[in-house]
Amino acid sequence: MSTIYQATTSAPVNIACIKYWGKRDTTLILPTNSSLSVTLSQNDLSSTTSSSTSPSFPTTLLWLNNLPPEQIDLPSLSSSTSPSAVADTRLTRCLLQLKKLRKELVEDKDPSAPKMSEWNLHIASYNNFPTAAGLASSASGFAALTASVAALYGLNTFSSEQEQGQGNDPLVSASQLSLIARLGSGSACRSLFGGFVSWSAGSLPSGTDSLATQIAPASHWPTLHALICIVNAQKKATSSTSGMQRTVQTSALLQHRITDVVPRRMEGIIDAIKDRDFDAFGRITMDDSNQFHAVALDTSPPIFYMNDVSRSIILLIEELNRVSLLTSRHLVAAYTFDAGPNAVIYAEEKHIPTIVNLVLRYFPLEPGTFEDKLGVLGGKDASQVGGGVPDGFDQGVVPGAFGVGTLKGLIHTRIGDGPRMLGKEKSLLGEDGMPKSKVVG
Amino acid sequence: MSTIYQATTSAPVNIACIKYWGKRDTTLILPTNSSLSVTLSQNDLSSTTSSSTSPSFPTTLLWLNNLPPEQIDLPSLSSSTSPSAVADTRLTRCLLQLKKLRKELVEDKDPSAPKMSEWNLHIASYNNFPTAAGLASSASGFAALTASVAALYGLNTFSSEQEQGQGNDPLVSASQLSLIARLGSGSACRSLFGGFVSWSAGSLPSGTDSLATQIAPASHWPTLHALICIVNAQKKATSSTSGMQRTVQTSALLQHRITDVVPRRMEGIIDAIKDRDFDAFGRITMDDSNQFHAVALDTSPPIFYMNDVSRSIILLIEELNRVSLLTSRHLVAAYTFDAGPNAVIYAEEKHIPTIVNLVLRYFPLEPGTFEDKLGVLGGKDASQVGGGVPDGFDQGVVPGAFGVGTLKGLIHTRIGDGPRMLGKEKSLLGEDGMPKSKVVG
Repeated sequence: MSTIYQATTSAPVNIACIKYWGKRDTTLILPTNSSLSVTLSQNDLSSTTSSSTSPSFPTTLLWLNNLPPEQIDLPSLSSSTSPSAVADTRLTRCLLQLKKLRKELVEDKDPSAPKMSEWNLHIASYNNFPTAAGLASSASGFAALTASVAALYGLNTFSSEQEQGQGNDPLVSASQLSLIARLGSGSACRSLFGGFVSWSAGSLPSGTDSLATQIAPASHWPTLHALICIVNAQKKATSSTSGMQRTVQTSALLQHRITDVVPRRMEGIIDAIKDRDFDAFGRITMDDSNQFHAVALDTSPPIFYMNDVSRSIILLIEELNRVSLLTSRHLVAAYTFDAGPNAVIYAEEKHIPTIVNLVLRYFPLEPGTFEDKLGVLGGKDASQVGGGVPDGFDQGVVPGAFGVGTLKGLIHTRIGDGPRMLGKEKSLLGEDGMPKSKVVG
Repeated sequence: MSTIYQATTSAPVNIACIKYWGKRDTTLILPTNSSLSVTLSQNDLSSTTSSSTSPSFPTTLLWLNNLPPEQIDLPSLSSSTSPSAVADTRLTRCLLQLKKLRKELVEDKDPSAPKMSEWNLHIASYNNFPTAAGLASSASGFAALTASVAALYGLNTFSSEQEQGQGNDPLVSASQLSLIARLGSGSACRSLFGGFVSWSAGSLPSGTDSLATQIAPASHWPTLHALICIVNAQKKATSSTSGMQRTVQTSALLQHRITDVVPRRMEGIIDAIKDRDFDAFGRITMDDSNQFHAVALDTSPPIFYMNDVSRSIILLIEELNRVSLLTSRHLVAAYTFDAGPNAVIYAEEKHIPTIVNLVLRYFPLEPGTFEDKLGVLGGKDASQVGGGVPDGFDQGVVPGAFGVGTLKGLIHTRIGDGPRMLGKEKSLLGEDGMPKSKVVG
C-alpha cells in the first residue's frame, strides 16, 4: 500500500476593525476597500483542518464538521487551469492554486519529490465553536484549509518564529497564501496572520496585490482583550455575500466611504496600533462599525444586522466611555459588529472586570455561559452576579435589564497568533486518511 | 374697555419624504439641504392657535395645551430689533418678525390702523393629537402660531382659493410667512402649505431664500393616502435639534448626502409628484428615509431612532413591494420614519386595505386604536381581525406576530390643505382674551 501524507493546522477567527463590505470582482473576491482586523486567540475560537494525500485515493473528499463527505471534482493541472468541464467553486479555486504551487516550486525542481499535485486529497475540517454562536466560520475555515494543504505540500510550516519575523523564509509566504485563502472567502486572507492584519484592496485586475500583511504580532499589544457578546438572534439575516453586492449596486453613500473615508481610517488605525493608542484605536473601530451598518441601511432594500440588543450594547459602551472621558480622559471599551447582531468589545485587560459587570447587570446570563478567566465574578456563576456601574453612569441609557438568555453567552478572549501546525494526535484523519471521529447522520 | 382683536387658525402636520437633517445656521435655522414633505389632513392631525391683542393687555402670555401661561418678554420695535436685553428665543424671533411686518405693511401705510405692533399678545395653542403619539408637534405648532398672528395682523387670510393659486394676493405670502415659521422650528415652514411642499436650503447668510413653496396642492393627488403606525417606544430618543448637529459635526457621510444625493432626489421626487408616479415617489421616499437613519447611525456617538418594530415594518413593506413588483410591476406602499420609531406609510387609496390587513396580522391592536374609515375591517374592531397576506408573500421576513399593543395605534389619513382660518366658535380664547377651557394644574 502506498504512503499516505498528512498535515493538520488550525487557523484563527479574525474580527475587522475597518470593515470589508463590497467586492470589485466577485469571482476573484477583490474588495472595494482595504480592511484591517484583529486575530483572536485560537485557544477559544479556531478551525482545524487535516489534509491528506496519496496516489491511492480514488477521489478527493471533504468532511466538514463530521458531516458525510462531499466529493470534489478537480481538473488535473496538465489540463487547462480554467476548469470549465468540472465545477468551478471557491474550494476548487483554492485547491488548484495550491496544487500549482506544489508543482512549480517543489515537484518541477526536485524530480524525487512525491507528485502530490497529481493525487487526490482527503480533507476534514472542524470548528471548535458552535456555528450557533453566529461567528463567521468561513474565514477561519478557509484559512485552516489553505494552511493545512500548504503544509502538506511543503510550502509553509507556520512556525511562530516565522510570524515574529525570525526563522527561515518558507517557500511560500503567508501573504502569498493569503491570496489563495481570499479565493475561498475574502476575510479568510486575514486569518493567515496573528495579531493585527491589514488586507489591501489592491488595484490589479488579477488581484495579485490584494493580499494580507501583518501590521503587528499579538505580542505587540498583549493587554488588548476581547469580549464577545453572543446575541440570541431571532432571524437569519441577509447573507453577507448577497448583501454586500446589493450595497455596491444601490447605496448612494458607499462610494464616498470607499474613496474618502476608509483610506484615512486605515492610516489612522495603523498608527494607533503601532502606538498602542486605545483611544484612537477604539474610536475608529466604533465609527467604522457604525458606518458599515449605515451603508447596509443605505442599501435598497435596506439591510439590518444589528437588533435592539446590539443597539443597547452600543449605548451602554458609549455611556461607559462618556463617563470615563470625563474622569480619566480615556476610552475604556470599543464595540464592533460584523454581519450579525453579536458584539465584539475590545478593551485593555484592566477594564475587562468593569465591562463584564456592566454587561451582566443588563444582560443576565444562563449558568455556565461565561468562563470567568480573570476571576471577575469571584468564583460566582455569571447567573448569580448583579453587576455594578461606575459613578456617574446614566442607567437610563437603555430601557433597563433584559431577560436571562437575551445574551446566549459571553466569551472572554485575547489577541492570538496565526495558523498553527498541529501534531498527529490532533489530526482529524487517521493513518488511513479517513476521519477518526464518527460521521454524523 | 378697549377693543380686543382676535384670530384663530389651525395648521397641519407635515411628513418629509426628503429629510431635513442638519443646520448651516442654528439661530436662523438654515438647513444644510433642501427637503420635501407631504402635508397631512387637519381632520386627523392639527395644531390650533388663537391669538388676541389689545392695548389693555399688560403682558404677552402664552398658553400651550391648557398648561398655565408663560409670560413672554418682547422688546418693543422702536428699540433695537436684535433684542439683547430680553430673552431671545425661537418664539420671540417669530413674534418680532410678525410685528415688524404689521408695522411696515399696515400701520406705517394707514395711520388709522390699530397700532397692534405696540400691543401685547395673548396666545393659546392646542394640538388635537396626543404628544404621546410621538408625532412632531413643533412643526404644526409654529405654523399655526405664525398663521394665527399673521391673520390677527391682517397680513394673510389663508383662503383655500389662495392656495389653489386663485383669489387675491395677501399682503404677505405664505412663502414669506414660512421664513418666520422657520425661525420657530425648521420644518414648521413646510406646514404653511397643503399638498406637496418643498423647503429650499437657500444659500444667503440672511436665510431670506430658505423658504417653503408648494409643488402641488392636495387636490393634485387626492388618492394618495397615509397610514401612521404609532410604535410603543420604550425610551426617549436623542432630540433632533441636538442629534442633527452631532451628525453635522461627526458624520463622514453627511456631506456627500448634502452635495450629491439630495439635489438629485429633490428633482426626482418633484417630477414623480407632478406625474403622480407612485413607483418613483415611493422608492425615493423609502431610500431617503433609510439614508437619513444611516447618517444618524454614522454619527459619533451613533443616533438610533428606529427600533426592531420599525425595522419589521420596513421588512414587511419591502416584501409586499417585492411580491407586487413580480405580479404588477408596481410598488404598493412606501414607508418613511422621522426622528422616532413611528412609521408613516404612503399608498394609493386602493391599496390601503391590503396594507391595513398586513399590519394588523403582525401587529394586533387594542380595541378602539384604529378608526376604519374605508370599512376595511367590515365593521369589526381591529383587535378582532387576523389580517391576510398576498399570494407569494414570505411570512418569514419578520420573526412572526408581535404582541397586542406593540403598536399603540394606526391612523388612516390623507393629504391635506394648509393653514385654515377658524371661526369664533373654534377660538381657544374668549371675548376677554383669556382661555375658554380650564387650565390644568
